[in-house]
Amino acid sequence: MLLTVINPNTTESMTATIGRAAAAVVSPGTTVRAVTPATGPASIESHYDEALAVPGLLAEIAAGEEAGSDGYVIACFGDPGLDAARELARGPVVGIAEAAMRTASYLGRGFSVVTTLGRTVGRAQDLAEHYGAARFCRGVRACAIPVLELEDPASGARERITEECRRAVAEDGSDAIVLGCAGMADLCAHISAAVGVPVVDGVAAATRTVESLVALGLRTGDRGEFARPPAKPYTGLLRHFRLGVADRC
Amino acid sequence: MLLTVINPNTTESMTATIGRAAAAVVSPGTTVRAVTPATGPASIESHYDEALAVPGLLAEIAAGEEAGSDGYVIACFGDPGLDAARELARGPVVGIAEAAMRTASYLGRGFSVVTTLGRTVGRAQDLAEHYGAARFCRGVRACAIPVLELEDPASGARERITEECRRAVAEDGSDAIVLGCAGMADLCAHISAAVGVPVVDGVAAATRTVESLVALGLRTGDRGEFARPPAKPYTGLLRHFRLGVADRC
Amino acid sequence: MLLTVINPNTTESMTATIGRAAAAVVSPGTTVRAVTPATGPASIESHYDEALAVPGLLAEIAAGEEAGSDGYVIACFGDPGLDAARELARGPVVGIAEAAMRTASYLGRGFSVVTTLGRTVGRAQDLAEHYGAARFCRGVRACAIPVLELEDPASGARERITEECRRAVAEDGSDAIVLGCAGMADLCAHISAAVGVPVVDGVAAATRTVESLVALGLRTGDRGEFARPPAKPYTGLLRHFRLGVADRC
Amino acid sequence: MLLTVINPNTTESMTATIGRAAAAVVSPGTTVRAVTPATGPASIESHYDEALAVPGLLAEIAAGEEAGSDGYVIACFGDPGLDAARELARGPVVGIAEAAMRTASYLGRGFSVVTTLGRTVGRAQDLAEHYGAARFCRGVRACAIPVLELEDPASGARERITEECRRAVAEDGSDAIVLGCAGMADLCAHISAAVGVPVVDGVAAATRTVESLVALGLRTGDRGEFARPPAKPYTGLLRHFRLGVADRC
Amino acid sequence: MLLTVINPNTTESMTATIGRAAAAVVSPGTTVRAVTPATGPASIESHYDEALAVPGLLAEIAAGEEAGSDGYVIACFGDPGLDAARELARGPVVGIAEAAMRTASYLGRGFSVVTTLGRTVGRAQDLAEHYGAARFCRGVRACAIPVLELEDPASGARERITEECRRAVAEDGSDAIVLGCAGMADLCAHISAAVGVPVVDGVAAATRTVESLVALGLRTGDRGEFARPPAKPYTGLLRHFRLGVADRC
Amino acid sequence: MLLTVINPNTTESMTATIGRAAAAVVSPGTTVRAVTPATGPASIESHYDEALAVPGLLAEIAAGEEAGSDGYVIACFGDPGLDAARELARGPVVGIAEAAMRTASYLGRGFSVVTTLGRTVGRAQDLAEHYGAARFCRGVRACAIPVLELEDPASGARERITEECRRAVAEDGSDAIVLGCAGMADLCAHISAAVGVPVVDGVAAATRTVESLVALGLRTGDRGEFARPPAKPYTGLLRHFRLGVADRC
Repeated sequence: MLLTVINPNTTESMTATIGRAAAAVVSPGTTVRAVTPATGPASIESHYDEALAVPGLLAEIAAGEEAGSDGYVIACFGDPGLDAARELARGPVVGIAEAAMRTASYLGRGFSVVTTLGRTVGRAQDLAEHYGAARFCRGVRACAIPVLELEDPASGARERITEECRRAVAEDGSDAIVLGCAGMADLCAHISAAVGVPVVDGVAAATRTVESLVALGLRTGDRGEFARPPAKPYTGLLRHFRLGVADRC
Repeated sequence: MLLTVINPNTTESMTATIGRAAAAVVSPGTTVRAVTPATGPASIESHYDEALAVPGLLAEIAAGEEAGSDGYVIACFGDPGLDAARELARGPVVGIAEAAMRTASYLGRGFSVVTTLGRTVGRAQDLAEHYGAARFCRGVRACAIPVLELEDPASGARERITEECRRAVAEDGSDAIVLGCAGMADLCAHISAAVGVPVVDGVAAATRTVESLVALGLRTGDRGEFARPPAKPYTGLLRHFRLGVADRC
Repeated sequence: MLLTVINPNTTESMTATIGRAAAAVVSPGTTVRAVTPATGPASIESHYDEALAVPGLLAEIAAGEEAGSDGYVIACFGDPGLDAARELARGPVVGIAEAAMRTASYLGRGFSVVTTLGRTVGRAQDLAEHYGAARFCRGVRACAIPVLELEDPASGARERITEECRRAVAEDGSDAIVLGCAGMADLCAHISAAVGVPVVDGVAAATRTVESLVALGLRTGDRGEFARPPAKPYTGLLRHFRLGVADRC
Repeated sequence: MLLTVINPNTTESMTATIGRAAAAVVSPGTTVRAVTPATGPASIESHYDEALAVPGLLAEIAAGEEAGSDGYVIACFGDPGLDAARELARGPVVGIAEAAMRTASYLGRGFSVVTTLGRTVGRAQDLAEHYGAARFCRGVRACAIPVLELEDPASGARERITEECRRAVAEDGSDAIVLGCAGMADLCAHISAAVGVPVVDGVAAATRTVESLVALGLRTGDRGEFARPPAKPYTGLLRHFRLGVADRC
Repeated sequence: MLLTVINPNTTESMTATIGRAAAAVVSPGTTVRAVTPATGPASIESHYDEALAVPGLLAEIAAGEEAGSDGYVIACFGDPGLDAARELARGPVVGIAEAAMRTASYLGRGFSVVTTLGRTVGRAQDLAEHYGAARFCRGVRACAIPVLELEDPASGARERITEECRRAVAEDGSDAIVLGCAGMADLCAHISAAVGVPVVDGVAAATRTVESLVALGLRTGDRGEFARPPAKPYTGLLRHFRLGVADRC
Repeated sequence: MLLTVINPNTTESMTATIGRAAAAVVSPGTTVRAVTPATGPASIESHYDEALAVPGLLAEIAAGEEAGSDGYVIACFGDPGLDAARELARGPVVGIAEAAMRTASYLGRGFSVVTTLGRTVGRAQDLAEHYGAARFCRGVRACAIPVLELEDPASGARERITEECRRAVAEDGSDAIVLGCAGMADLCAHISAAVGVPVVDGVAAATRTVESLVALGLRTGDRGEFARPPAKPYTGLLRHFRLGVADRC
């Protein structure tokens, strides 16, 4: 089975972290392709960044289809472009926010999300509601850490995130923690050991989820809303995104 | 007051229809700029189209800021790029779906949305929930009409839409109708007369709404989630979307 | 266009404040009639006051119909008698709570309401849910200020309200403030400047909203629940509220 | 124990029906006073009627307090004036809609409401949500029967209501029926026998509920929202509704 | 009328407390049987305890049917086995959590639940949602008191519970308190006097509620989900729970 | 990895079907133990059956802990005893209803559940809400097929279920189907091929889900509600369910 894990931002070092987290959890026989779009922002920290990450991400879906990918992970906690990706891909597509939140819902009555910048809290709450996880989500907490600082050991990011996770357990009464950024993928074991509750990394959770969907023979239903998009003219910078009528991308 | 009404697809004739609908309802002293993005799809009929319409739309917001626009309307019923546009613009930004649904909520206990293709129904339901209009929205009904057919008098689109509106009133018990596509802007008076209930066109509703917000001195709150996006590198096709640190676009 | 703004309490000085706030925001060509009912309480600070304000308010709707009013604002944050007024009036009727909350919903992810007495908080929360604004409403906060004290500069009301608005932004993480009493209409600009977020006064918001509904040719749907009430005998103090069969009030 | 059952409309024959229904279900030692307001509409079939029934109803609460009433039933399915009545009365106050819906919630997974005119359906749905009964309420169905026709054996009302109840069970899959009008109080046994499911009459349910509240020593909490209303001037037709500062009505 | 009040745990002294609370509130002519199952845990403080209390409880329902019981109370705040009991009994069955929460909903805008161990909080929140009481429930608070300690005057339980109730009123702004354990039945009057708000004991509330249902001729609807269970083989420890085809237990 | 799949009813042939479905989807290195309780009903078709299946199921959890099981599947669509099992097991426990519903939520905007007897529909709706899947669940449909008839090829069950799935897609507009009974596990591929949409069998979905949780190092959070139950006396038929203080079962 071939899975493509897309880092929707253009920072290669973060793609490497994400790729390692995904590869570490797949079953024997599954291969992970971790890819970085050619187009888009260096990190996703606003609605603006998120919207502009989507064309590059969709190009990676199209490339994945060419490469015979069986399923996809969108490795940014805002799950950018998820619905469009589902129209485009033959196989299943899973976002790390939806996978992380649903996975955490199996672990108790409630979880807290711990994320980077305060301005992303609203989007996480929105997704919790959108995915039906709002009744499990007891809080979304930010650490005032820019995304790319996660990669800098000198930033103290790991300690601050661990501390916020500890507060989440104590104050929200949560049974589990969800890490709210793909860039936190390698902190999971450390925090779980430090805080004493299960900690869900979305990259790992989404990778296992999409692998299971493929193994179960499940794909996005394509009889209605998620059928292949109607072909039509595209112009300007994105003119190459025009779909052919007969082929999939 | 200068208002910019953005048709997020690249079909100029539809921009003209939208521009007329907006200009018809503004107060004395308000000027409407109706604009068409240089980049994007000819019509928006899928999540794929909608996602790929956003860069062109954001470029129009940036251009509008240069032109001194006081407020913006996003004239596609999926409200694409709304949150990102709010981060970017100094003045208020209003989507036609949110304005149409909230406007209809003043007219009785419930409304029905009548839209084009069945595959857009899910998105409209989603927005109804997102905007807090779900408890007013008694149904979303599609007419199996591609967006650009709305412009073709020979397509019979007007009659089919009117008929579906009639069924909506009878079967959903709705007090009002919301037209679910910017391309229907010029059908409003006809349908209202034919069906006997108030009919809300989102373009007109959003234009009046944003005009009122400007008149009231209201803009998007910019102290948290909707503050200007952090500046950072952008690469590839969208490299020119990089924001400067000090200036707005 | 002729708009009637009804202060549902019987305090003339408050009607004057409300009338100024409404007149300040209408477009050229629109006239505002601010009226005070002959019957009812001097201020509305309980469910009892609110219920007993409604007959006087409905008499003003009937008088407005005689006077050729095109639309109505109910200028008390409990939106008393709104449904009944909609049955009675030919044109649209808008309450200041619904208009303020929906208007604030265009300005970000969440708002806080700041109101007068603690005993009115429940009603405001109730209306937020009723209007579909609960998912935007992050808090309703009271200042322990009786309504008529708002008119007394020596009461310190302005400072206390401003301070509570500041706390709302900091503690609720709100993007905007909604003022929870018609008597606060003239504090809007001051507080916005002091606190740094958009502040919505319901009188201004409702006036612009109803003006837009009239401009768009929209009225309450009258085919079902909001059709004219069946005529029937009325007795006692309210015997003159009997409706004729053929005429509207 | 003395209970006051208030028919909020001014039709004495309906008060008699309601009074019989209440008296039939109380325990030994409980006395029922069924009263008709001096002021208000002959029947309640619109928001207008409902709003204008409230002053007369509140006068009956005040009179009941003088008479030493231990608790109150508001016997109209719109529960008019309920919150105001709770501020005014020392003892508990129960509306027939809330009592009927909550009572039916003990009888299975879902109930249907069968009511008189279609224009009252929205209000019943609204109350279901307000009382937390929406998840039990599987449908609200109207029979196009004016309220006062319920008293006319020649109207065929009984048969049409029974037939609608039968449809409700079959089509909504409901475990129980709620009768949506106080004027249906004497149809309860007949319909239950005919349709084969439990049928809840709100007058009987509310009477038993308020009797139980009194027996349990429970009253409306009066430390916040439902404390006695602040005293203040009242003018015009309702000037006698001014409350004294020290006494309860 | 014969009512059976089942203490689902096996501690006889708690059954005695519960029986006294029930007997104290019934009307003349009603007899209360308070019973203790032969099988099950000494107290219910976990999902495990709750699940394993159900067989013993259902055996008591079966025995009650033999004894001619007209209705049943399940006297544990988790309402264990309620749906199964409703299938089995001819008459109505009421849980103390549902009765307490619905009863408290008549007393104001919101209540707080005060319960024993923190680990039971989630279940109480769950039930509040299940019964449609979530919009009335402003908080569930635990006192870290094991259930059986409630019977020990030296434990200080009464004081700690009273103190938590006081905090609930102050911090949650609740109009009423719900006691979250059948073992608190005899604290009701003391706490109400101490805290100054109405306090609802579920045993008393449920007993009055089921008595009223019987008096109103209401029983669980048995045409669908709550029809008598299909007969079938049972094996092992619970082989005697096999139902006959023709008789009720 | 050792996974235990528990058929909560006592019919061995159904256990065999379930065991095959689970074994067919696990990754290399994972072993499935499919077990049948010694105590309980032959099938689960009522709340009564479901409640009485739980003790036998919990005994299997305890036995699984002895056997070193790493995780558990509860293979009945009512997810009986799930919370209690989570308290008891060291590793994760997943119900087939929660896994099927959450899995289907990755496949589009909505799914329909197709189940056996109409009397189980309410429970499925309840679980959809409990798991946050209600906004994805567009309908629960029953086929009037007793559970054990699923095993009889002559019953026509397969055809009737397939036909109901076809109707669900057409009438509910669902993107996917969820099979609402563990006994349907072997129909999944057939129906998916016949109906043309993805079909989710809960046994397979839950098995993959719990395998992933174990692979990710995730277990039920045990710091609060799901900590090991307090030890205490148990009496009667279930006296052997008494837990020791120090050991886990």
